[in-house]
Amino acid sequence: MQRILAIDAGGTTTRAVIVDLSGRCLGYGQAGGGNPISAGVDSALASLVAATTMALQASQPATDTFSSALIAMAGASAQMPLERISDRFTSLGLRGDVEVDSDLLAMFYSGTSSSHGYTLVAGTGAAAARITDGRLEAVSGGSGWLLGDAGSGYWIGHQVVRAVVASLDGRAPETALSDLLVASLQLEATSERSNGRSLLLLRLIHALYALRPIELSRFAPLAFQAQDDHVASGILAAAASELAGTLAAVWDPGMDGPVVLGGSVLGGTIRGNGMLAGTSPLAASLKTALGDAELIPVRDGVVGAAVLGLLRAGIRLDRDVFFRIGRNVSLRREAASVNGSVV
Amino acid sequence: MQRILAIDAGGTTTRAVIVDLSGRCLGYGQAGGGNPISAGVDSALASLVAATTMALQASQPATDTFSSALIAMAGASAQMPLERISDRFTSLGLRGDVEVDSDLLAMFYSGTSSSHGYTLVAGTGAAAARITDGRLEAVSGGSGWLLGDAGSGYWIGHQVVRAVVASLDGRAPETALSDLLVASLQLEATSERSNGRSLLLLRLIHALYALRPIELSRFAPLAFQAQDDHVASGILAAAASELAGTLAAVWDPGMDGPVVLGGSVLGGTIRGNGMLAGTSPLAASLKTALGDAELIPVRDGVVGAAVLGLLRAGIRLDRDVFFRIGRNVSLRREAASVNGSVV
Repeated sequence: MQRILAIDAGGTTTRAVIVDLSGRCLGYGQAGGGNPISAGVDSALASLVAATTMALQASQPATDTFSSALIAMAGASAQMPLERISDRFTSLGLRGDVEVDSDLLAMFYSGTSSSHGYTLVAGTGAAAARITDGRLEAVSGGSGWLLGDAGSGYWIGHQVVRAVVASLDGRAPETALSDLLVASLQLEATSERSNGRSLLLLRLIHALYALRPIELSRFAPLAFQAQDDHVASGILAAAASELAGTLAAVWDPGMDGPVVLGGSVLGGTIRGNGMLAGTSPLAASLKTALGDAELIPVRDGVVGAAVLGLLRAGIRLDRDVFFRIGRNVSLRREAASVNGSVV
Repeated sequence: MQRILAIDAGGTTTRAVIVDLSGRCLGYGQAGGGNPISAGVDSALASLVAATTMALQASQPATDTFSSALIAMAGASAQMPLERISDRFTSLGLRGDVEVDSDLLAMFYSGTSSSHGYTLVAGTGAAAARITDGRLEAVSGGSGWLLGDAGSGYWIGHQVVRAVVASLDGRAPETALSDLLVASLQLEATSERSNGRSLLLLRLIHALYALRPIELSRFAPLAFQAQDDHVASGILAAAASELAGTLAAVWDPGMDGPVVLGGSVLGGTIRGNGMLAGTSPLAASLKTALGDAELIPVRDGVVGAAVLGLLRAGIRLDRDVFFRIGRNVSLRREAASVNGSVV
């Protein structure tokens, strides 16, 4: 019986599943960031191997070989040393080829069996795509924290810290975000001033510059926690508007199709907050912006990675196969979670 | 006859003058960035020494000793190894102490002999201060490229590249800034697409991530070049509004006083553009925002550094002394420029 390894290699989390050609999921595994651009090649490769090893060990029935591997990751195929991956995976039981595909396509196929439609992803970064005949027809966003990704987790976190700095600096109104940020960084609050400046502000600036810029994304949940605050709700409204603009850039008025929403900001849970997709104010606000399009929030891209693996193995994707993959991956994921092997 | 060394140590340029106690300027020297935070301690120290050596060599009458040294720099006194500077300066002829003072205070005293008033500085960064009795009473801004400095050269440059990326990505309107940026980075224009994305955009993103973020400030002049463009003028209007807000944060309605405008964005020339202070659209727009306050644009902080040096030597700052310093520094600077020793 042929088995396929499918991996969703994200910036923060890597998820791997073993599926058979009927769409049954045999095992699920998870590890840290698997994107070579953000994590570095060695660390990304280690995550791919760790998630795969875990999925193989969890497999029922037991699995020690697989016929192909599909890795979904953000525009990183050029950066990833496919030969090194192939060598490592062969030692884990691979008896065929490794292929890399788009994370956007995997996110799309996590939510639908249609080969036409749209996906909008907002995790640490943000991007949208129009999919036609199962291929990326148009892509927008994904230009990274410094140059784009408006509305993403990084973007929201950055707006949060800038709003707090401006407020403590007397350049902007007070906001409930200040106390949340100061608490989250475990800074000692003080109203003292030194050389015409707030001492607390100097401490805050010092603590924030000690982080890598991309780590500001960890403060995005504060905006959701402080939704009743005028400044926080303004940031979330602006994020929704930016994300709607990113999707609009790939929208074809002549083409209908479902809109799959993914990433921690839109689709899944937000760390430290526990809010689920359906109740996200961003998702709600996008719903208003997008009118009567069918919106499908998904947790991540691992189901779609399995779909892409099956498509490449020549399996026709009907709704039965699609739903079997989704249901099976959920069950295996829950089992892994109950066993305490997924944190 | 007692001589004083006064230095304006900026992020991009370090300027040094030798003055006597009557306010005569004997020599002028210039070197690269002298701020230890942005340039690193060794490189900053090398710039201080180079500018000082040049000023001493240019001195008329010839000068080989000086009784004190004053260095004006952005909130960096804690980072600067005063003993190392003192040792180096002693070998150059120093027979007294080295003191460090605020760059904001130096900018203020470059424009006025009053001991009360305001300064607003927008170079690579942006900050404002209220000065009372010759001391910094309140300071706003200066929180760096990632967290603050709204309206600064970095901020404008960052907005320029984000606007171009968004435009090429189909998320924002076309702008004349695109051609200017592509030309400035010497990229080959193309309308080809790859995997649903603009190839030119991918090239642009690649080129921009190869820079350090702070280097985006070099694209600020493009916004001034493209002033007729709707997007560019929007960026400049937003910058003016942010800078007015930074000044407003230190404004005391009960205290009048001149407003000294400094830094490459506001006060002096903008590299690659050659526009002078008086004609800057930012300065013009601030003029509207600030009503009837007296606005004094200055080129940099070196005159004020000399003023601070004289004040510390116990000289009373009357208008005669103040204007003598300003006039003399200009003459020495021009002489250095004619001699080709200042680029």
